[in-house]
Amino acid sequence: MNTFGRILRISDFGETHGLCIGGVVDGCPAGMTMDFDFIQQELDRRAPQSGVEAGTKRRERDQVKFLSGIHQGKTTGAPISFIIENQDVVINKNNDGILKPSHASFVLKEKYGHHCNEQGGYFSGRQTVSRVVAGAIAKLILKELGIQMSATLLSQAEIRECDTSGAVVECVVTGVPAGLGEPMYEGLDSRLAAAMLSIPSCKGFEVGEGFRSATMHGSEYNDMQKPGFHFFSNHDGGIQSGISNGQPILFRAAFKPIPSLPIAQKSVNYAGEEATYQGSDRNDRCVAPRVLPVVEAMAALVLADAMMLQNTNHFFVKKHEEI
Amino acid sequence: MNTFGRILRISDFGETHGLCIGGVVDGCPAGMTMDFDFIQQELDRRAPQSGVEAGTKRRERDQVKFLSGIHQGKTTGAPISFIIENQDVVINKNNDGILKPSHASFVLKEKYGHHCNEQGGYFSGRQTVSRVVAGAIAKLILKELGIQMSATLLSQAEIRECDTSGAVVECVVTGVPAGLGEPMYEGLDSRLAAAMLSIPSCKGFEVGEGFRSATMHGSEYNDMQKPGFHFFSNHDGGIQSGISNGQPILFRAAFKPIPSLPIAQKSVNYAGEEATYQGSDRNDRCVAPRVLPVVEAMAALVLADAMMLQNTNHFFVKKHEEI
Amino acid sequence: MNTFGRILRISDFGETHGLCIGGVVDGCPAGMTMDFDFIQQELDRRAPQSGVEAGTKRRERDQVKFLSGIHQGKTTGAPISFIIENQDVVINKNNDGILKPSHASFVLKEKYGHHCNEQGGYFSGRQTVSRVVAGAIAKLILKELGIQMSATLLSQAEIRECDTSGAVVECVVTGVPAGLGEPMYEGLDSRLAAAMLSIPSCKGFEVGEGFRSATMHGSEYNDMQKPGFHFFSNHDGGIQSGISNGQPILFRAAFKPIPSLPIAQKSVNYAGEEATYQGSDRNDRCVAPRVLPVVEAMAALVLADAMMLQNTNHFFVKKHEEI
Amino acid sequence: MNTFGRILRISDFGETHGLCIGGVVDGCPAGMTMDFDFIQQELDRRAPQSGVEAGTKRRERDQVKFLSGIHQGKTTGAPISFIIENQDVVINKNNDGILKPSHASFVLKEKYGHHCNEQGGYFSGRQTVSRVVAGAIAKLILKELGIQMSATLLSQAEIRECDTSGAVVECVVTGVPAGLGEPMYEGLDSRLAAAMLSIPSCKGFEVGEGFRSATMHGSEYNDMQKPGFHFFSNHDGGIQSGISNGQPILFRAAFKPIPSLPIAQKSVNYAGEEATYQGSDRNDRCVAPRVLPVVEAMAALVLADAMMLQNTNHFFVKKHEEI
Repeated sequence: MNTFGRILRISDFGETHGLCIGGVVDGCPAGMTMDFDFIQQELDRRAPQSGVEAGTKRRERDQVKFLSGIHQGKTTGAPISFIIENQDVVINKNNDGILKPSHASFVLKEKYGHHCNEQGGYFSGRQTVSRVVAGAIAKLILKELGIQMSATLLSQAEIRECDTSGAVVECVVTGVPAGLGEPMYEGLDSRLAAAMLSIPSCKGFEVGEGFRSATMHGSEYNDMQKPGFHFFSNHDGGIQSGISNGQPILFRAAFKPIPSLPIAQKSVNYAGEEATYQGSDRNDRCVAPRVLPVVEAMAALVLADAMMLQNTNHFFVKKHEEI
Repeated sequence: MNTFGRILRISDFGETHGLCIGGVVDGCPAGMTMDFDFIQQELDRRAPQSGVEAGTKRRERDQVKFLSGIHQGKTTGAPISFIIENQDVVINKNNDGILKPSHASFVLKEKYGHHCNEQGGYFSGRQTVSRVVAGAIAKLILKELGIQMSATLLSQAEIRECDTSGAVVECVVTGVPAGLGEPMYEGLDSRLAAAMLSIPSCKGFEVGEGFRSATMHGSEYNDMQKPGFHFFSNHDGGIQSGISNGQPILFRAAFKPIPSLPIAQKSVNYAGEEATYQGSDRNDRCVAPRVLPVVEAMAALVLADAMMLQNTNHFFVKKHEEI
Repeated sequence: MNTFGRILRISDFGETHGLCIGGVVDGCPAGMTMDFDFIQQELDRRAPQSGVEAGTKRRERDQVKFLSGIHQGKTTGAPISFIIENQDVVINKNNDGILKPSHASFVLKEKYGHHCNEQGGYFSGRQTVSRVVAGAIAKLILKELGIQMSATLLSQAEIRECDTSGAVVECVVTGVPAGLGEPMYEGLDSRLAAAMLSIPSCKGFEVGEGFRSATMHGSEYNDMQKPGFHFFSNHDGGIQSGISNGQPILFRAAFKPIPSLPIAQKSVNYAGEEATYQGSDRNDRCVAPRVLPVVEAMAALVLADAMMLQNTNHFFVKKHEEI
Repeated sequence: MNTFGRILRISDFGETHGLCIGGVVDGCPAGMTMDFDFIQQELDRRAPQSGVEAGTKRRERDQVKFLSGIHQGKTTGAPISFIIENQDVVINKNNDGILKPSHASFVLKEKYGHHCNEQGGYFSGRQTVSRVVAGAIAKLILKELGIQMSATLLSQAEIRECDTSGAVVECVVTGVPAGLGEPMYEGLDSRLAAAMLSIPSCKGFEVGEGFRSATMHGSEYNDMQKPGFHFFSNHDGGIQSGISNGQPILFRAAFKPIPSLPIAQKSVNYAGEEATYQGSDRNDRCVAPRVLPVVEAMAALVLADAMMLQNTNHFFVKKHEEI
């Protein structure tokens, strides 16, 4: 299922080795001015930075081309579709017929009968480029409501030559009103967790104190309130019972080291026989910093969707109060 | 949204302070023998154990009553509905008008305009009783396919008098064939993460090495394969690119200390004025061990659903191969 | 899939031959006063009328019992669950092992492997009782917004002794603002069509001129507008391109004669051998008048859902205009 | 919501006045050979036929370009995306600022605040081109299972110069096994009705005897069975209780006359003042024959989706029987 969201929804498509990456954003309010410069900036944040140690040597110039849903710079209410053309597609023929270690190669063989690494191009870090575009649109919606988000690199395994490093990313969302999130199975924390784990290489999610909360006691953990409904603390990370409480939302996502290594690795071929997979030097050494706009994008999609769902209720509450 | 799942789906309802807790399971295959004893055993695992230090003093006798979807002990294909009647409902009037700290009280006031703790009874650990029933049905489906799961208490903050403790629960799922999980946004890891975070008090999720993977390097992390498609390691915890790889699925969930404390806590009343919330002695001191069958139940729902989605594809693959 | 709706959703359950019929309504705004008398009145409209020629001789006293989601007479935002107990359940043993003609018996045998008419009790006119309850809740929402609906019997095959008659029901919805309905696949007409065809025995749906429009020309059909955006005509029945245009919504549903006849009919047993199905005298002779509140209920669910979806957009449009 | 289907899903996008029309097909089985010639043939069936009286004078050369989801002529399991570029886009400036009668102009103004006919380009007959592509893929799936469908023009209002004519289309689906269709709200008839009403200009749907069934009696209507589970008749049109019974599925869709007339019509401008809308001579005079492949496409999407949902159950039934 390539769709994320209930009201504001992104359906993405495209492979690393194909013509383009793209997506369809459905449910975006009509009449909203599209800030194309902002969207391009977000894409640029995801692009490889020259000179950055952890970055890739591959050159990607990602430019989004909108195909529908926009008229004279404003959204029309119709589905917004877009593509980002792939450039500089290089297929490493050295590894023909050999499974790429800790990659999607094996599971796709099992699930779909693929017998070629190229077919796994949908399961690629590059696929996140469409999320960044969709997330930028969500950010434009949230900006009007005063909601902003910022992801930073919290920690990273030390950089070693010819190896890749895991990392933890932290994200803070501010300006979120209390009351967002739907019970029981679509709480904000559930949605954010699902969103993060859907990012390639993500292996963990925690909100507020997260795993540290497991070492704490209720008397020190509880976020008690003082007059005016202010809180003494924010151990819960802004979400209680799946619903925002008006404090900043704070969560972290753990990323494993990127499985693409610039060294030879043990593997097997598609017949299950011993083989060596020869990595190239074209890939990133760490998901950070390029994953930061992706984390923000997914968080923006979750929050914009929750905001739109919440409006539904507010409307009736208001109507009812008037009567 | 009180529904979880795409094909096998649970919709639950009911409040702690109401008549009953219940649920509707939709999409269960027809003709399956219902093992009522097994379902009751699962409920008993969730019930308070007498003599266990961390347990509650409240006495719950949970017995499930099926209302539909079963005929002569077998599923019919129609929705399976059930209720578990509430007994021994005690409403603590001492705290009338005072927000329960770190509970749903405040967010429900903000979201729905509630002005009473009783109304938050839907957001309660007790609500998980219906998940255990639904999960038991999912386990019956998975059992026929050789899939089993087991959750254990991995660690816990030390037990202190008059306080509650956080805990980490680990769950292992065995017998999972390779190929389960749907791209891109409904991978097994995303679904499990969403499922765990939907359990009251859960604040974190990780699969395989999880947060530890952020401290590792690719050369040590990658799960390389040997002849016959066997793996040298299982750092990924059985899931790659959201899809099962045939190895045991291993994940952990972090739970904060239960917010209900048997002591007085600072709080505010519904007008936002200073107040004291006086806890009772009726609640658990830790989510464990009662949360273990809940963790398993949610994992079972995720896996049974993924299995059913996967069958759809297998069928066509097979048909196609025959032709 | 036993769930209808996107925001306001009904999931129903229960069989004619079982303990009860019931449902769960999810997504209802919080704080809404439940008018229990009105809900009971709607159920009474669906109940068999004594002395009415087309009515059933079976006596049903349907009283709804709410299990959750309501506190002190108001909705809480949590799922509203309810049951209606079955009374006077009589199982006709004369037809044991014989397929009921033009009923669900055969298709359920094929789909689920049922070998008993009782198992088809989910596929029964009685199942609509839960829709009437859910629809009544939807009507309470719509009432606050000035939207009302009324279904009437438009035509009916003549009444004959020992036979059943088909009928056409017409429904008018007034007070619908322009702009409701979601493109492309969830237009109001698509949703209403799906809703009507889901009612047992419904075989056709048309909106506005419907099938008569196929005999017309554009020059006579087009609903042209006059100053102030008023319309000269309403051939489109209030819906254009799936979206309400502010005129009354007018649609019709065709119902086949109820398949349960009080006479003997040719059939086969579950082994496929010739047999005779001996009907009883307990069933209705026509879906009308009892289907009228069911038609209204389904229309109310469609419109309340569309209204809630639409609010989402309006909110942003408004925010945007303010800025 | 621009998505149709539960397992096999089409999300479409694009406007008549924009760069292209396109779509994303999700859930298609992997490893299926794409018959590009067949897909193009289907598009050609939808293209304007030269010399056909009811046809359009506008010249469209629709060629589909696949962007993803296909590798070496076979589906990979990833989303299949495609576009059809628009050619010969002509915008009639004569009607700037004037609402197009019986079109989407007014409802889009009300829903989204559009003030321009061009923005309604999403709500256009041309949008169905993406459905034909998606439907062709669904047909390829169904073909392997022996399911075929054929739509024909059943009746049409007489052709008049400078006017458009309504029409009724009939569709027969053969080779459908018994047991397809999901209770309660996703029966085959509900899904087909929703699918047909989503086609621009469709105003009615009926299955089997349809509206004629309302004039019939049960004793003449009931589809009784004879030894071997064969049927004496097919008044129900192959669907009972929303589930296929193995007989041919027969349904009809009513289409109003196309609202675009080659004559001047009364209307108003976007300020609500009297105006005249001057039609052009570029449009079709009747939805037929070009709508026929669209009707088939939507039916194919419904049936392929139902087939995939049904496999899920069959698998377990089989497993269970083996054990």
